Amino acid sequence: MAVIPMAFSESEKAALYRTIFERRDIRRFRPDPVPTTTLARILEAAHHAPSVGFMQPWNFILIRERSLRERVHAGFCRANADARNQFAGDRGERYAALKLEGILESPLNICVTCDRDRFGPVVLGRTCQADMDLFSTVCAVQNLWLAARAEGIGVGWVSIIHADELARILALPATIVPVAYLCVGYAEEFLPEPELQTAGWLPRLPLSDVLRFETWDSLPTMEWEELRRQAAGK
Amino acid sequence: MAVIPMAFSESEKAALYRTIFERRDIRRFRPDPVPTTTLARILEAAHHAPSVGFMQPWNFILIRERSLRERVHAGFCRANADARNQFAGDRGERYAALKLEGILESPLNICVTCDRDRFGPVVLGRTCQADMDLFSTVCAVQNLWLAARAEGIGVGWVSIIHADELARILALPATIVPVAYLCVGYAEEFLPEPELQTAGWLPRLPLSDVLRFETWDSLPTMEWEELRRQAAGK
Repeated sequence: MAVIPMAFSESEKAALYRTIFERRDIRRFRPDPVPTTTLARILEAAHHAPSVGFMQPWNFILIRERSLRERVHAGFCRANADARNQFAGDRGERYAALKLEGILESPLNICVTCDRDRFGPVVLGRTCQADMDLFSTVCAVQNLWLAARAEGIGVGWVSIIHADELARILALPATIVPVAYLCVGYAEEFLPEPELQTAGWLPRLPLSDVLRFETWDSLPTMEWEELRRQAAGK
Repeated sequence: MAVIPMAFSESEKAALYRTIFERRDIRRFRPDPVPTTTLARILEAAHHAPSVGFMQPWNFILIRERSLRERVHAGFCRANADARNQFAGDRGERYAALKLEGILESPLNICVTCDRDRFGPVVLGRTCQADMDLFSTVCAVQNLWLAARAEGIGVGWVSIIHADELARILALPATIVPVAYLCVGYAEEFLPEPELQTAGWLPRLPLSDVLRFETWDSLPTMEWEELRRQAAGK
């Protein structure tokens, strides 16, 4: 067997996979505050995300003030009422029954923003794909989410609110774009599967259905068949 | 001390943080193929990313064919020559000296795409933020990147190529957007810090510089001072 250099131990790998598979979008929180040292570790993990041209375009706006969170919550409620009307009939009823945020229940909200001008205007790696800075910011969100999960902290991403309203409430300068609005706190529970899956809103796709080989339409060669078979078994 | 429910053990947390801090953008690869079982685990981790409305908008196009990778590499070379000209003087020389991809050296390329119409057109959570599906796809990329790191596999994200050229080479339908083009294989080495940091291209920002409190311009209250102090110490 070939030596695999620099791989982690089996138990380290298992810990990472456990974090990834047990991460959930959390909407139900206990009121206990997140300890400062824990919060600092989670933010440090977010800050070590990859970023295009090492521009580190993110900021983390930490929000505890009730009055600010009430304004964000009001913005969510308006946007959510509009959203509900876009789902017809039974789908609309089921939409309305879902709990989609924990803005006021969670002890902490974090808005992760992207500074589109940081170290700019010309950024290495962003010369043909203008949104790479937004994507880097999303990588920071995912790091934050995983670190939080390992700490027992739940994170819920609220996307049902207009960006310009968030920018107004948080007094963001014009070049600062809100990418993610997160509710953060100890989770009531981490469910065994995503809530929308359990609720029958949409099914989990089989991994084998989202794999493609060489180009979009190519059939898998013999070389790829074993991978497809393994992916179908998951 | 309050009981922290559902947190992981100290060794599990350490494994996650190790993965996050030791992940690198890799441009130098050994030619050994990635074993199928390892690849299946990494892809399964990517497939368990969060997604808006549980739409799972991603596909993973696995590319080994040399002729396809040569076309992608040619597209990179053209885009990179244009990019180099956007950096003036000494900065341009330094840009030209950087190795920014491993498209042909790596044994595997993966294009992670976003199907903007999957389960659409109305998607829960995407009703006011149209790019949430792209952001979900980026979360899958970050999961893939972290899982690969734990397996000793390097990943490099090539953003210096035009999306329409990638779409043409990979024969993508109009609704399928390429989000990330990744070079994947055993890394020659995982460096202690990002290459662009070591090269002096840009510095690592102190965590405390990217924190904000309540709104963009608010001064931290006493309550936030301890977090700011801890973040400054990192």
